[in-house]
Amino acid sequence: MAEGDQEGKLLGSADPLNIINGDHENRANLPVTSSLPMNGGNGTYSYSKNSYYQKQSAGVEREKIIEEIREKLDMKTLSSVSNTIRLADLGCATGQNTFMTIQTILEAMQRKYKSQISQSCPHDSDDQMPEFQVFFNDLESNDFNTLFTSLPQDRQYLAAGVPGSFHGRLFPESSIHFVHTSFSLHWLSKLPEELQNKASPAWNKGRVHYTSAPNEVIEAYACQFAEDMERFLNARAKELVPQGMMVMIMTGIPKGMPCSQIPTGMLYDSISSSLMDMAKEGIIEEGEVDSFNLAFYAASPEEMAGIVEKNGYFGIERMELTNPAAWMKGPVDIPSLVTHVRAAMEGMFSRHFGSLVMDELFGRLTHKLQDISDLINSTCHEKVQLFAVLKRK
Amino acid sequence: MAEGDQEGKLLGSADPLNIINGDHENRANLPVTSSLPMNGGNGTYSYSKNSYYQKQSAGVEREKIIEEIREKLDMKTLSSVSNTIRLADLGCATGQNTFMTIQTILEAMQRKYKSQISQSCPHDSDDQMPEFQVFFNDLESNDFNTLFTSLPQDRQYLAAGVPGSFHGRLFPESSIHFVHTSFSLHWLSKLPEELQNKASPAWNKGRVHYTSAPNEVIEAYACQFAEDMERFLNARAKELVPQGMMVMIMTGIPKGMPCSQIPTGMLYDSISSSLMDMAKEGIIEEGEVDSFNLAFYAASPEEMAGIVEKNGYFGIERMELTNPAAWMKGPVDIPSLVTHVRAAMEGMFSRHFGSLVMDELFGRLTHKLQDISDLINSTCHEKVQLFAVLKRK
Repeated sequence: MAEGDQEGKLLGSADPLNIINGDHENRANLPVTSSLPMNGGNGTYSYSKNSYYQKQSAGVEREKIIEEIREKLDMKTLSSVSNTIRLADLGCATGQNTFMTIQTILEAMQRKYKSQISQSCPHDSDDQMPEFQVFFNDLESNDFNTLFTSLPQDRQYLAAGVPGSFHGRLFPESSIHFVHTSFSLHWLSKLPEELQNKASPAWNKGRVHYTSAPNEVIEAYACQFAEDMERFLNARAKELVPQGMMVMIMTGIPKGMPCSQIPTGMLYDSISSSLMDMAKEGIIEEGEVDSFNLAFYAASPEEMAGIVEKNGYFGIERMELTNPAAWMKGPVDIPSLVTHVRAAMEGMFSRHFGSLVMDELFGRLTHKLQDISDLINSTCHEKVQLFAVLKRK
Repeated sequence: MAEGDQEGKLLGSADPLNIINGDHENRANLPVTSSLPMNGGNGTYSYSKNSYYQKQSAGVEREKIIEEIREKLDMKTLSSVSNTIRLADLGCATGQNTFMTIQTILEAMQRKYKSQISQSCPHDSDDQMPEFQVFFNDLESNDFNTLFTSLPQDRQYLAAGVPGSFHGRLFPESSIHFVHTSFSLHWLSKLPEELQNKASPAWNKGRVHYTSAPNEVIEAYACQFAEDMERFLNARAKELVPQGMMVMIMTGIPKGMPCSQIPTGMLYDSISSSLMDMAKEGIIEEGEVDSFNLAFYAASPEEMAGIVEKNGYFGIERMELTNPAAWMKGPVDIPSLVTHVRAAMEGMFSRHFGSLVMDELFGRLTHKLQDISDLINSTCHEKVQLFAVLKRK
């Protein structure tokens, strides 16, 4: 508790809501074309030392996952074929969060299994708990070495790492019983090409994201997201057994709300305008801003439901938005927020704009965000975390 | 061909037979107590740049593996339950060798499957080739990042990495159809404690290995090996499906032959005497030599067969010694041999004796080996590679 309190004091007021969730946890799942290795290892800016926000935000959904398993997962049927239950965490990164989540899911499954056994054959104590195998997935560039050396010593499961994009096949047909993926699916597999085409109405001039952009830009992002989700769902449909469950947690947005009205969008707008100011002053080229875009998309529940229904392989058990910062007290501490954003995103920007201008960029960003801190504080409890539970038909 | 020839010229005459096989490829499977991270990455002394010997030695057994799969593996039955075939390479390290071996096994399995299908239902072209899933296993300290980023792009299998000791459980019950392990099983899980007990007749004073040691020392190593193999076989017995196959390649020795009569043993004896000379001259402490031992054991086919039969879970399909250097022409190039040994083993020695004395040690070793080069050359074609094929009963 003491340690948790301290962490809360140090970091709590700097919570950027899903600004951090979106950008920090899942850099490993950036599109291949623009991916950078995330901060591996255990250093000052490593993911494993900088994932408190994700832990807190994921905690918001913890009880719901337990409830879904208790109410809707038929462990007896799932384990009837081979007595092995296989779990997958897609976009696992390197930190402790994936181990905590897996532990939560595993314990809920064990409880459900026991309750089903005691109901069906109350005098049969020989019925053996299934073995659990857990697959930790992320892109090839993820730091699996840190993940593997951090595995809990007392784990009650057999662990494996699976490198590769979850937009394609990762596991054998009908082999997985439960899929979990947090803060990963909002990353696109690639950037829409038209964003950089000067002749296209979707040319995203002077911005790094679709926030505050013309509809054509938003549409290009939305199309790419729908295409990625279709590939994701098709792959999972192959891999999940019938009645297998999939929990998806990601950045979301209420239907019809412009991205500029949530903190993530305010951050992106402020980055865009900081960069454009620097271009006007000749510190960077304006063309460099035009050619840089973040492959990040926040879907509404209605949009996601439409994609799932069109795909057709899954039933929707639950689909809702939640406030990922329900645990957070007090106003946002802007300088601390920018430090966290910088730790998470600096590599992405420095590779494109050069490391020499990073102090300048993040300094300007701090000022821009301080100017709109009232706005950020007034929106930082919006429901911008999408929680979805699907079941393979 | 040209590239292969060049490699052969550069390295061929320096082949230390299984001196290198034993010490280089599998440092990752050293006992936890004395393990060092093997040379990961792609640098000058990395495993992936220094595994030509292993490639050649493994190649000696390639045709035999293909033959065993063709003659003895029932692919139709193995794939009848789930249409997924699962392979495991235990002690895979990071290099290309594991990918080549897996490719060989996979292609042999596909051929066998096709031939079985065409025999059983010649007009049924709908019978679908199974999906293949390959598990690459090594200790947690292995460089899985290099392994994952080196995976063949055009692979016809789903890949996963499994960190952990193969002396314990790695996979779910009855889930694996084929196990391969090369140049790993000769590493003990730990050193017998009595080697360092001055009151024990197995105190290994003045030596770094059981080569040229009293029977009690040899016996202590043999007991540990038998215990390790028993744990290994019990774990694999759980994991392999009935009729699943296991291929084991490791350093071996003809029954009754002292280790001092094979090049590996000559190397260890020369290291021991180099260190003892240095102790006498006050460069290191004699106690440091007494307390250092290499956890390496070479078994005879008869010894291995006895262990497998006592275990009882496996039938022996094949058990034989081969000459791992059949491809090698010309005499051993001692300085080049020592360079390779140093690249592979320096870490192990420098951690114990300090990095300052490494030049001294390997310089002396070169002279010692040059003095016995005739002996090394006369024994370098001994059959010291143990090839075993087991089948789960």
